[in-house]
Amino acid sequence: MSIDTLKLRSVRIDTYHENVAYLNRECSIYRAEGFQALSKILVSANGSTLLAVLNVVDDDSIVLPGELGLSQQTFEHLHLDEGTLAKVNHAEPPKSMDAVRRKINGENLNQGDFTDICNDIAETRYSKMELAAFLVASGQNNLDRSELLFLTRAMLQTGEQLNWHEPLVADKHCIGGIPGNRTSMLVVPIVAAHGMLIPKTSSRAITSPSGTADTMEILSNVNLTPEQMLEIVREQRGCLAWGGTAKLAPVDDLLISVERPLGIDSQGQMVASILSKKLAAGSTHLIVDIPVGPTAKVRHMRQALALRKLFEFVGDRLNIHLEVMITDGRQPIGFGIGPALEARDVLKVMNNDPDAPADLRQKSLQLAGRIIEFDPDVRGGQGYAIARDILESGRACAKMNSIIKAQGEKAIDLEPGKLNYQVCADRDGVVTQIDNFQTAKIARMAGAPMEKKAGVDLLKKMGDKVSKGEPLYQIHAEFQADFLFAKKLAQQNSGYSLGDNEQILKPLTAF
Amino acid sequence: MSIDTLKLRSVRIDTYHENVAYLNRECSIYRAEGFQALSKILVSANGSTLLAVLNVVDDDSIVLPGELGLSQQTFEHLHLDEGTLAKVNHAEPPKSMDAVRRKINGENLNQGDFTDICNDIAETRYSKMELAAFLVASGQNNLDRSELLFLTRAMLQTGEQLNWHEPLVADKHCIGGIPGNRTSMLVVPIVAAHGMLIPKTSSRAITSPSGTADTMEILSNVNLTPEQMLEIVREQRGCLAWGGTAKLAPVDDLLISVERPLGIDSQGQMVASILSKKLAAGSTHLIVDIPVGPTAKVRHMRQALALRKLFEFVGDRLNIHLEVMITDGRQPIGFGIGPALEARDVLKVMNNDPDAPADLRQKSLQLAGRIIEFDPDVRGGQGYAIARDILESGRACAKMNSIIKAQGEKAIDLEPGKLNYQVCADRDGVVTQIDNFQTAKIARMAGAPMEKKAGVDLLKKMGDKVSKGEPLYQIHAEFQADFLFAKKLAQQNSGYSLGDNEQILKPLTAF
Repeated sequence: MSIDTLKLRSVRIDTYHENVAYLNRECSIYRAEGFQALSKILVSANGSTLLAVLNVVDDDSIVLPGELGLSQQTFEHLHLDEGTLAKVNHAEPPKSMDAVRRKINGENLNQGDFTDICNDIAETRYSKMELAAFLVASGQNNLDRSELLFLTRAMLQTGEQLNWHEPLVADKHCIGGIPGNRTSMLVVPIVAAHGMLIPKTSSRAITSPSGTADTMEILSNVNLTPEQMLEIVREQRGCLAWGGTAKLAPVDDLLISVERPLGIDSQGQMVASILSKKLAAGSTHLIVDIPVGPTAKVRHMRQALALRKLFEFVGDRLNIHLEVMITDGRQPIGFGIGPALEARDVLKVMNNDPDAPADLRQKSLQLAGRIIEFDPDVRGGQGYAIARDILESGRACAKMNSIIKAQGEKAIDLEPGKLNYQVCADRDGVVTQIDNFQTAKIARMAGAPMEKKAGVDLLKKMGDKVSKGEPLYQIHAEFQADFLFAKKLAQQNSGYSLGDNEQILKPLTAF
Repeated sequence: MSIDTLKLRSVRIDTYHENVAYLNRECSIYRAEGFQALSKILVSANGSTLLAVLNVVDDDSIVLPGELGLSQQTFEHLHLDEGTLAKVNHAEPPKSMDAVRRKINGENLNQGDFTDICNDIAETRYSKMELAAFLVASGQNNLDRSELLFLTRAMLQTGEQLNWHEPLVADKHCIGGIPGNRTSMLVVPIVAAHGMLIPKTSSRAITSPSGTADTMEILSNVNLTPEQMLEIVREQRGCLAWGGTAKLAPVDDLLISVERPLGIDSQGQMVASILSKKLAAGSTHLIVDIPVGPTAKVRHMRQALALRKLFEFVGDRLNIHLEVMITDGRQPIGFGIGPALEARDVLKVMNNDPDAPADLRQKSLQLAGRIIEFDPDVRGGQGYAIARDILESGRACAKMNSIIKAQGEKAIDLEPGKLNYQVCADRDGVVTQIDNFQTAKIARMAGAPMEKKAGVDLLKKMGDKVSKGEPLYQIHAEFQADFLFAKKLAQQNSGYSLGDNEQILKPLTAF
């Protein structure tokens, strides 16, 4: 073994998206190369290379001098055995950081610049700091719409792309921020029952109390291999899978992993993120749902319109048939917030239960109707009626059952979390506002989405009359600590505003 | 022990500036709280709190369920014993990130915003990503000069401040980028011999082949406690210490730890960084050296002038008597690049050796002269002559020897690294340019500053006539690997340009 090779060793530390390498301080290479903790190093073994952040170890039980420890995901990523010989070198900063620095200096970048940046990001050559620098430099109004097109194209091209070999592959996407908004679980079976291809992949919750994948997981398996998904979609015309396993637009995931903790999200990044993912998934026709309301992501109609234009500009140039629906985002959709509670709402709508939440049903039918009208054989204006017919006839329910069976049925348990607390009205009046952020935060504190049965169950919605002391909503939790946190938060700010009838905010979409 | 307390454990992993906490995946708290690897957690123990990035561990020999592992510096920072009970919670993002997001959106921030940001950074509430976001948002021309003043004041106020209880505390600072530029080691003894107080602290090299602290370390100890420094300065009127141990303007260190790897440095950040450090060190009078040249940090005279105005604007408002000297930055100063080689140059000037590098001598005398003219008893224009007299009379040398003795003398060994390679002229001609970056990089590759005797020794400087085959400079190294790297780099690009006499670049300062 030459002086400059090390034996690979798996260190059972989970460092998530960040590659970490561990070198013993007594290791001769560490000393010779003048590495420093946190410096980035290039690891090469058996023809593979990766970049990792260096941690220096003073404990021989973690790594010995002569060994190169790698954190779990990093080690697995290499697909090599422990003991394989590896080399380490100083990592050069990614070349495309020059372009990022030009952007910081206010220059416009071209397609080649964005392609280089996305290639380097996809090859995990960017540290979290470098990703943050790129995001801030290209955030807000710093990208013009041509640059946004270049970025979207580059994000699309740096990952795999699915091809369904059909002329019409439908999809829908909501920009998010509205708790309980589980329309996909109704839209997919309706549209698939109509015969259109709708291979829907969804995310799990990151900052919300539940994502469509979390809620669908109450009913069926959602972790499908690409092969399973292909087969299910071929048979059922649709699926409701978790999108995390596919390698579609991987740059998007890496950017989001920095954007979220920083709490920065620009409209441009949102458009690039959504369209690159949808195009990579092989979608040809897409409905984008933009909810507008005082506690939604988009608060003003003019913002929604500007965002629509951005979606249209980029979508048209990347050859996707895209329509934007601006919807009512003044309050959560449905009653339940949290995986099991939301699944209950979905099933009620699916079963045409008279207690089903009307807003969830209505919005799902509108979205499904718009998608069905992508079908050239459907007359303009007929989509909604077709969707309603599919739902009311039980065909949507039958299709959903087939999809659930195909993905892997689960023993359904919709019983909400056993600890519960009612938040009550402090006056007589009418519900004038329900805060999307606050109700989502309370549901999350209660344990959603990790605890499937935890969350918030809304008993009153906007416009409902309430008497003093009457319950507005109920918190469900599984664990005492979560329960107390959520209760405390609800006591500080319930998220409900009560007033007189005329104080109800008009839907912004009506302006 | 309650369910939600953990026993502290030191994990012998060095993660440098980043606090890292290790939780076993089987730990009940990890499961209950829904933490995720890389999420930020708040650690509380015995009344102390700190924020740390979470790594999840699947190896009981690193941490057991029920234990909370902390990386080395993090554990030491708490000053608690292993086994102390600790709690962990989700860390709230720092409140001042709201201001950073406003800055990203193009708003101007006020003094309160900058104070909040610097307080949160000083309390290590900012992750590397958040620091990068702040740096990019406030980089380049994004801060107007009032904001720069607010930032400098906030950086100053979030650390300790020295008070020398004297009306005139002199200091000098070079913005950097010129190899071999060891003027401080000459200026300090000259100025101190004149009787002025000059308690100089310097940095070690981060990206350069040597910092003043590295070079001074060849001659004496530079790691002084604040008490030692105080005593030495009281007796000697000056010192040449490493500034890393003091807690002056700690925010600056944290910002630099992100700025360097990103390769972003704005003029604004530079001014805030330098002035906050100098003011915190108790300086009342400061000379700022701005070298200008095609491979210097500042490449054009107009940039140097703009930077001068920024220094003056902020300095005047923070009550420091500040003068800017724009100097010739067209090539390295002196002959040696690397700690031992530079120390040799300094001693030659100090001993009035006829072979001493003329440029190092000349520049040191100019700087010392300007500082001496801060003395109200010195007539304008007399400073240079006084400095030269102090140097030529041997008084500077005597003072330097006293300072070296006081700091802790070392056995001086100026023998350069034993492996050496000569880079020779490929044509007859005149040296027309010497690239500061390239010569610094070669010296660094050769092992400087870790290997004290490694570096580059320039045999020819600009304007020198050379014949084909005549050596231009010599590389010195201690280790074979370093030696080969440096040699290869020099073969790719020697850093020297040879031409005809009239091609020599005029000093930009003369324009």
